[in-house]
Amino acid sequence: MPSSQSRARYAYLGPAGTFTEAALRQVASPEEAQYLPQAGVVAALEAVRSGDADFAVVPIENSVEGGVSATLDTLAGGESLALLREMLVPVSFVLAGRPGTRLEDVRRVATHPHAWAQCRRWTARELPEAVHVPATSTAAAGALLAEGTTQFEAALVSPLTADLYGLETIAEHVADTESAVTRFVLVGRPGRLPEPTGADKTTLVVHLPSNKAGALLEMLEQFAVRGVNLSRIESRPIGDSIGRYSFSIDAEGHIAEERVAEALMGLHRMCPFVKFLGSYPRLDGTPPEIWEGASDEAFREARAWVTSLVPPPTGT
Amino acid sequence: MPSSQSRARYAYLGPAGTFTEAALRQVASPEEAQYLPQAGVVAALEAVRSGDADFAVVPIENSVEGGVSATLDTLAGGESLALLREMLVPVSFVLAGRPGTRLEDVRRVATHPHAWAQCRRWTARELPEAVHVPATSTAAAGALLAEGTTQFEAALVSPLTADLYGLETIAEHVADTESAVTRFVLVGRPGRLPEPTGADKTTLVVHLPSNKAGALLEMLEQFAVRGVNLSRIESRPIGDSIGRYSFSIDAEGHIAEERVAEALMGLHRMCPFVKFLGSYPRLDGTPPEIWEGASDEAFREARAWVTSLVPPPTGT
Amino acid sequence: MPSSQSRARYAYLGPAGTFTEAALRQVASPEEAQYLPQAGVVAALEAVRSGDADFAVVPIENSVEGGVSATLDTLAGGESLALLREMLVPVSFVLAGRPGTRLEDVRRVATHPHAWAQCRRWTARELPEAVHVPATSTAAAGALLAEGTTQFEAALVSPLTADLYGLETIAEHVADTESAVTRFVLVGRPGRLPEPTGADKTTLVVHLPSNKAGALLEMLEQFAVRGVNLSRIESRPIGDSIGRYSFSIDAEGHIAEERVAEALMGLHRMCPFVKFLGSYPRLDGTPPEIWEGASDEAFREARAWVTSLVPPPTGT
Amino acid sequence: MPSSQSRARYAYLGPAGTFTEAALRQVASPEEAQYLPQAGVVAALEAVRSGDADFAVVPIENSVEGGVSATLDTLAGGESLALLREMLVPVSFVLAGRPGTRLEDVRRVATHPHAWAQCRRWTARELPEAVHVPATSTAAAGALLAEGTTQFEAALVSPLTADLYGLETIAEHVADTESAVTRFVLVGRPGRLPEPTGADKTTLVVHLPSNKAGALLEMLEQFAVRGVNLSRIESRPIGDSIGRYSFSIDAEGHIAEERVAEALMGLHRMCPFVKFLGSYPRLDGTPPEIWEGASDEAFREARAWVTSLVPPPTGT
Repeated sequence: MPSSQSRARYAYLGPAGTFTEAALRQVASPEEAQYLPQAGVVAALEAVRSGDADFAVVPIENSVEGGVSATLDTLAGGESLALLREMLVPVSFVLAGRPGTRLEDVRRVATHPHAWAQCRRWTARELPEAVHVPATSTAAAGALLAEGTTQFEAALVSPLTADLYGLETIAEHVADTESAVTRFVLVGRPGRLPEPTGADKTTLVVHLPSNKAGALLEMLEQFAVRGVNLSRIESRPIGDSIGRYSFSIDAEGHIAEERVAEALMGLHRMCPFVKFLGSYPRLDGTPPEIWEGASDEAFREARAWVTSLVPPPTGT
Repeated sequence: MPSSQSRARYAYLGPAGTFTEAALRQVASPEEAQYLPQAGVVAALEAVRSGDADFAVVPIENSVEGGVSATLDTLAGGESLALLREMLVPVSFVLAGRPGTRLEDVRRVATHPHAWAQCRRWTARELPEAVHVPATSTAAAGALLAEGTTQFEAALVSPLTADLYGLETIAEHVADTESAVTRFVLVGRPGRLPEPTGADKTTLVVHLPSNKAGALLEMLEQFAVRGVNLSRIESRPIGDSIGRYSFSIDAEGHIAEERVAEALMGLHRMCPFVKFLGSYPRLDGTPPEIWEGASDEAFREARAWVTSLVPPPTGT
Repeated sequence: MPSSQSRARYAYLGPAGTFTEAALRQVASPEEAQYLPQAGVVAALEAVRSGDADFAVVPIENSVEGGVSATLDTLAGGESLALLREMLVPVSFVLAGRPGTRLEDVRRVATHPHAWAQCRRWTARELPEAVHVPATSTAAAGALLAEGTTQFEAALVSPLTADLYGLETIAEHVADTESAVTRFVLVGRPGRLPEPTGADKTTLVVHLPSNKAGALLEMLEQFAVRGVNLSRIESRPIGDSIGRYSFSIDAEGHIAEERVAEALMGLHRMCPFVKFLGSYPRLDGTPPEIWEGASDEAFREARAWVTSLVPPPTGT
Repeated sequence: MPSSQSRARYAYLGPAGTFTEAALRQVASPEEAQYLPQAGVVAALEAVRSGDADFAVVPIENSVEGGVSATLDTLAGGESLALLREMLVPVSFVLAGRPGTRLEDVRRVATHPHAWAQCRRWTARELPEAVHVPATSTAAAGALLAEGTTQFEAALVSPLTADLYGLETIAEHVADTESAVTRFVLVGRPGRLPEPTGADKTTLVVHLPSNKAGALLEMLEQFAVRGVNLSRIESRPIGDSIGRYSFSIDAEGHIAEERVAEALMGLHRMCPFVKFLGSYPRLDGTPPEIWEGASDEAFREARAWVTSLVPPPTGT
C-alpha cells in the first residue's frame, strides 16, 4: 500500500456503501487512494477547489431523474473544475429492514429523495400507505436503520449497503426501471486535459442571449453546422428570474478536434456565458459518426484552401 | 360559508403553512373551499384522477431549481389532467428554532431538499458545519421542530410556518436569491378548457423521435415556422435509457389559436409522444408579440386562398 | 379528322420544326388539334389569356441554360394561367448549311441565343473565328438559310429542321452536353386542376419579404417543416431594384395533398407575393419519398387530435 | 497619353457605344487604356485567360433579367479569374431609326434579346405588330441600322449609341422599368486581391452536394451561423441533368474577414465544388450590419479562449 502521503485523495458522497463509492472504486481501490467521504456533492466538489482533495467523484446524471442539480450548479458556478472521466453504476434497490421486519410492518421508509422517486411505482403498489422519510443518502438511511433508534421500519438501499450494515432484505428489485443507471464523473482541478481517444465527450454550460425560441435554435445550429452531435442537453433556470435558462450539454467529441473547437468558438461569440467543463473519454468507447466534411482533415484542407486565396499583405 | 357538500375540494401539498397552501389561497379561501392536504405532489394529483378531489394545486417550476420533477412526471404519465390556471408565490425563508435557540447552537437543520438547495450559499457561509436533515416539506420541518422531540435544532421555513407553529426566527432572508418565486398550477380533470384571453400559455410534454441534435432542432422549428414562442423548455430523461429525453414546454398562446393548433399538429405528426396539458391565462396578462403572418386572420385568409385554388371534385 | 371548329387550338413558338413543336406533338397530333405558331413565348401565352388559343406549349426550363425567363416572367405577371402537364424534349443540334457548304466556309452561324450557348464549346473549338447571328428560333434560322439570301453560311438547328428545310448536315452532335433536355409545359386558363396522381409537381412564384439571407432560409423551412421537397428552385430579380428576388419553384406533390396545401398557406402568410401556377403529373411518374408524418393520413389524424382537445364553444 | 506599350489592355463587349463601354469608362478613359472590343462576353474573358488582355469588363447582373448566364458560366468554369471591382450603369433605351422614320413605319425592331425583354411592355403596347430582330448587342443593332441596308426600320439602343451613329430618336424612355441598372465587373487574373475596405462583397460559385431542399438550407446556414448576409443568390442548372443546381452568390464582406473566411471553409467542407471569384469593394460603400459576435475581434477572442483551454501537448 502506498503511504498516505503519496496516495491521491478522493472526495465523494459518503458514507461507505453509497452508489458514489461504487463509482469511486472503478477509479481507484481503497488501497491505492485515500477515500474522503463528504456530507454532500457540494462539499465533495469544494474539497477539490480548496485543495483538501485531489479529485472528487460525484453523480452527474441519472437515467430516471435526469441531471443532478447540485452537481450541475456547483460545476457551473465558482472556480473552474475539470471533468476527467465518466463512470456508470447500475441502480438497484432493495427494501431492507432490521432482522425480522415483514413487509406488512412497514409504515415509514427512509431513503434519499431520488431513490424514493425511482421506486415510486413499486411503493405505490406494495406499500400504498407508507410515508417517505427523506435521508441524505441511501447509505445514510441504511446506517441509521442499523443503529436501531429510528422512527422508520425500512429503507430503500443498494444491496451493498444492506450487506454492509447487516440489514435483512424484505423485497428485491424494487426500482421501477430495471435498466436504470447513474452516471458519475471524476473531477479535478483544470489544467490537465485528457488526450483525445477518438471517442470522447465534451461537457459545457451555456446561457442563451435571450429567452426566445429562436435563441435555442441558433445555439443548436452552432453544433449542427459543424457536424457535432449532442448526447445530452438539459435546461435549468438561471435563477435570476423565471424564463432564463442555462443549458448543460454533452457534445460528442474532444475540444482538440477541429469541429468541436469551432463550435465552441461559435458559442463563445453568440452566448453571454459558456463554461467548458472538460473533454474526456466516453465510457462506452463508441466513436461518433462523423461525416466526411467534419473530420479534422477536412477542416485543415478547408483552412489551407482559404489561406491560399488570401495573399499575404504586401510589405510583410 | 357554503356547505361542505357544495364546496369544491382542493388537494395540495400540506400540512398547513406550506408555500403550496399560499398558492391555493390565491384560488379559493378556506371558507369557500375544502382544503385537502396531501403527503406529496403525486398524492395530490392522484386525488383528482381518483375523484377524491375536484382540483389539485401543485408546484410546477421554481425559479432556482427548475421544474418540479414529481409534478412534471405525474402529469406526463397516466390519465390526462388539465392545467387550468397558474399562480406565483415568492420564495422567502427564515431560519427558525424553538424559543431561545441561538445561531451558534445550530448543528442540524431540517427542511425540504429544494429549500436547502435554495439557501445553500447562506448556510455554507453562516453554518458551515451544519448538517441537512431532509424533511417532506418545509412546513413539516417546522411542525416537527415545534413538537420538540427532534434531533435538529432549527428549520428553514417560510415566515408563515414559523408564525403558525410558534417558532422563533433566528435569521431572516436566508434564501440565496431574493427574487426567487415558485410557479404553481391549478389542475383539474380534462374536458374544461379555459377560454382564450389573448394572453395565454399552453403546456405540453413532447418526446423526440430520436436523440440526435437534429431532432430537437426540427421540433423547435415546428414552433418557429408558425411564429409561436416558447416561454419555458426543459428536458428530462425519458427513463428507459440514458440519452432519450422528454421535453416539458410552455408555448405562448392558446390551442384555440390557429398558430398554436397548427404547431401542435406538426408535433403530433413528427413526435412519437405529445401530451397536451392545457391552455390557460398567463398570470402576468402579457400578450405575446405575434407577427402579422401568424395571426388568426392571416391563417384564415391563407386557408381561404388555398381552398379557392382547389376546385371541389366534379360530381359533388 | 375533327372539324376545325371542334379541334382545340394550341399556340406555340413556331415556325414548323422548332423543339416546341416536338413538345406539342407529344400532347396532340396535327390531325387532332389546330397548331397556331407564334412569334415568341410571350405571344403564345397571351393568346391563351386573350382566348385566341385554348392552350399554349412553351419551354420552361433547359437543363443547360436554366429557366426560360420570358416564360417564367409572363407566367408570374398578369392574368393567371394554369400549368396542366409537362413534356421533355431532348436537345440535339447539327450544324447545317445549304448543299455544298464545307466547315471551312463557315464564318457566320445563325441560331437562337440559347442554342448558341449550348454549343459554345464546340464552336469555340471547331469554328473559333465564327460570329453568332442571333435568330428568333433555331427553326427560323434554318428557314432563312434555306431561302438563300442570308448573310450567314450555316445554322445550328435540330435534325428535324435540317430535314424540313432541305439543308445539308455539316457536323452532327455539336451540343456541348449530349444529355441536354428542355422541359416544356402545357398551359391553359385556370379553373381546371389536374387530378392528383400520387406523383405530381406544384409550380409556384414566390417573392421574399426581404433580401436578407434569413428570409430565404425561412421560406425554405415552410416546405421542410411539412416534409415537402423541391425539385427546382430558381431566383430571378424582381426588377424594381438590384437585390430583391423572385423565386420560381417546383415542389414535389399536389396542392390537393395536405402537406403541400399547408406549406402554401405558410408561404401565403409570410411572403408578400405567392402565385400558384398549377399542380400536374410528373412526366417520370416517380412518387416523392414522403416520410410517415407527412402523409395525408398523418395530417388528418393530427387535426382530429387537436380538434378533440378543443371542446366546441358552449352555446353552439 | 501613355504609350500603347504601357497602357493596360481592357477587353469588353463592343462595338463602341455599348453599355459595357460605359462601364469601362468608369474604370479607365480611352486615353489611359487600350480598349479591345470583343464579339462577346466569353471572348472578353478568354482574352484575359490567354494574356491577350490585362482586364475584362463584362456585365454580371441585370436588375430586370438577372444574372448574365454567359458571364456566370465562363467565370464558373475553366481557369480562375478574379473579380476586382464592380460598376453600375443605368439602363436606358430609345427607339432609334434612320432620319425621317416614324413610329408607324416600324415593323421590325433590332436589338439584343436582353434589351428586347426589358422593353417588352412598351413594344407590346406601342408596336404590337412589330417583330424582334435579334442582334449581338444594342450597339451592333445601331451600327447596322446606320449602314442603311438592313431589313429592319428601327433599333432599341442606348441614347449614347443613337448619338454615336447619327440615328434619330423615335421614342424615348421605352424601357419598362425606369430604374433598371446593369452591374458590371472588372475581371483580372488571380493573385491580386483588393484590400478590405469594410464594405466589400465576395462572389462565389457553389454546387450543392444533393438536390434535396435540405441541402440548400444547410448551405445557407453556413453563412447564417457566422453572421454573413447574402446580397445576391441565383441558381443555375449545372447542366449534367435537370435537377442539379449551381448557385452564384454575392456575400457581404471580404475573405480577409474572419466570418467570411470561416463560412467559406464551411462551404468547402460540405459542397463538392466551391469557386472563389473575388472579394472587392461594394460600389455603394455601405458597410454590412455585423452583429457584435461576428466581428473579427469576436473571432479572435473566441479562438484565444479555446486555445487557452487546450494545453500544448506535453513534451513540446
